[in-house]
Amino acid sequence: MKYCFGVDLGGTTVKLGLFEENGNVVEKWEIITNTKNEGEAILPDIAKSISDKMVEKKIDQKDVVGVGMGVPAPVTAEGNVNGSANLGWKYKEVKKELETLLGLAVMVGNDANVAALGEMWKGGGSGEKNMIMVTLGTGVGGGIISDGHIVIGNNGAGGEIGHLCVNYEETEVCGCGNKGCLEQYASATGIVRLAKKKLARETRVTKLVQETVTAKDVFDCVKEGDLVAIEIAQDFGYYLGYALANICTLMDPAVIVIGGGVSKAGEILLEFVEKAFQERVFFANKDVKFALARLGNDAGIYGAAKLILEN
Amino acid sequence: MKYCFGVDLGGTTVKLGLFEENGNVVEKWEIITNTKNEGEAILPDIAKSISDKMVEKKIDQKDVVGVGMGVPAPVTAEGNVNGSANLGWKYKEVKKELETLLGLAVMVGNDANVAALGEMWKGGGSGEKNMIMVTLGTGVGGGIISDGHIVIGNNGAGGEIGHLCVNYEETEVCGCGNKGCLEQYASATGIVRLAKKKLARETRVTKLVQETVTAKDVFDCVKEGDLVAIEIAQDFGYYLGYALANICTLMDPAVIVIGGGVSKAGEILLEFVEKAFQERVFFANKDVKFALARLGNDAGIYGAAKLILEN
Repeated sequence: MKYCFGVDLGGTTVKLGLFEENGNVVEKWEIITNTKNEGEAILPDIAKSISDKMVEKKIDQKDVVGVGMGVPAPVTAEGNVNGSANLGWKYKEVKKELETLLGLAVMVGNDANVAALGEMWKGGGSGEKNMIMVTLGTGVGGGIISDGHIVIGNNGAGGEIGHLCVNYEETEVCGCGNKGCLEQYASATGIVRLAKKKLARETRVTKLVQETVTAKDVFDCVKEGDLVAIEIAQDFGYYLGYALANICTLMDPAVIVIGGGVSKAGEILLEFVEKAFQERVFFANKDVKFALARLGNDAGIYGAAKLILEN
Repeated sequence: MKYCFGVDLGGTTVKLGLFEENGNVVEKWEIITNTKNEGEAILPDIAKSISDKMVEKKIDQKDVVGVGMGVPAPVTAEGNVNGSANLGWKYKEVKKELETLLGLAVMVGNDANVAALGEMWKGGGSGEKNMIMVTLGTGVGGGIISDGHIVIGNNGAGGEIGHLCVNYEETEVCGCGNKGCLEQYASATGIVRLAKKKLARETRVTKLVQETVTAKDVFDCVKEGDLVAIEIAQDFGYYLGYALANICTLMDPAVIVIGGGVSKAGEILLEFVEKAFQERVFFANKDVKFALARLGNDAGIYGAAKLILEN
């Protein structure tokens, strides 16, 4: 039996998984991310945790295919990071450093892209090779898989779906400095923004409260038939559905997987998105499937494991 | 010395090239595309032309790496076509059939995608691995290369850049059935459409004539400082530049190559596109280079040769 490790490196914790080659999880655990001194301890801490686990489980070095890791930053095809605010890193040759520390093969990717790979391997996109993943959280993240491979790009910044411009008339500024980014409409904060704008000039009866409305409130009220909430969900659906239709024109995926906190609203969310999507999709992409993400917070370690297994 | 053949299959002629492995062209020639009887003679004609050339040049089968071919239709990763109006084909296993006819390895791709690969290998994108190519002709075609590989997609319909929606307010219908496609603004016919609309309500002096205006007229007049023509070119630049900025958000390319008849306007065309692009581009993609296509009508045979060489 061969093994590999999947690592999901975040700003506060590092999630780790020991996998069998076929994708079975032997064990999952977490360690703290120590970001002190430009995050100099992060890679040694990860290396030690992996080495300790190999000793504990009596796994020989020769039976380990390697280590895959997702990092919260753009990562080049060579496994280099040009700075990560969340980790304190400046320029770092992550793949090379971790390989030296462990004496194992290492593959590194952007965390959102790696999570997409995980969902394709064992989650909502299972069985496919061409997939778009969009993660609706505080922001909108994403990952694009083409013929089984992550779209990395020249600077490791491929798949930044949240910053597609979907509204050239927008006057408010996105965190990235542009205006009209998908993230301004389809993230949890974006949905709240849409809701507050609507509620400010709304005269109909609604359970939604302008001051405290959340993305979850919106979809909860949609399920109760609240017309104001339904119109907010429709706006959300248009922006996301139209953006996804455009992405399909470029990528021709088999499946679109939607994850992140907002997607906990469930199938009802997909209905709004798919309706808008079908209005605008290029004829060749009409049959693309929609699915909810299935791996939750484990998508990162699964994707990281797959990254090293397919290397 | 090893050889390969690159084939660019069009609706009226088939362009063929005999290449050395390093990309040197030994000879280029053309044959007629016989589309009679659902195009049943096309593949046998190509096979015969290649066999005859091998006899003529005294090239042994074992010294030929194989044959690459671009086809005017979506082509799946397996080399199958699900119908091509230009060729008369219905469903056809193109790769398999040509391999059987020739006894050589064959790789098949969509013609626009294959031309993009050619421009990356020996043209405007030379030296890069992540590239967007957009071809401004009667329509707008395109090809996307990610980490050296064509984005094929699930149905072979990847890279359909011309059908990105760039204007959700458009009321006129594109050939594809949607409204607001890039092709409606950035193709030769799209530029004429923009020009005619503007000239219909224009009171300023201009050399452009509403009834007969062509895309070439527009850029010729731009070079003479014609203000009306400059505004038309600006509109063209916005639509194309904004679309390319969005594509970069997804693909993070190193270079964007612009080809096709409209691009013969030269560097002046790039200026309009780059200006608009820089207004909207995501910060991670600011340094993407623009280049004009360099291989002209030979991009297809170069890309086809590369397709089989990299297989």
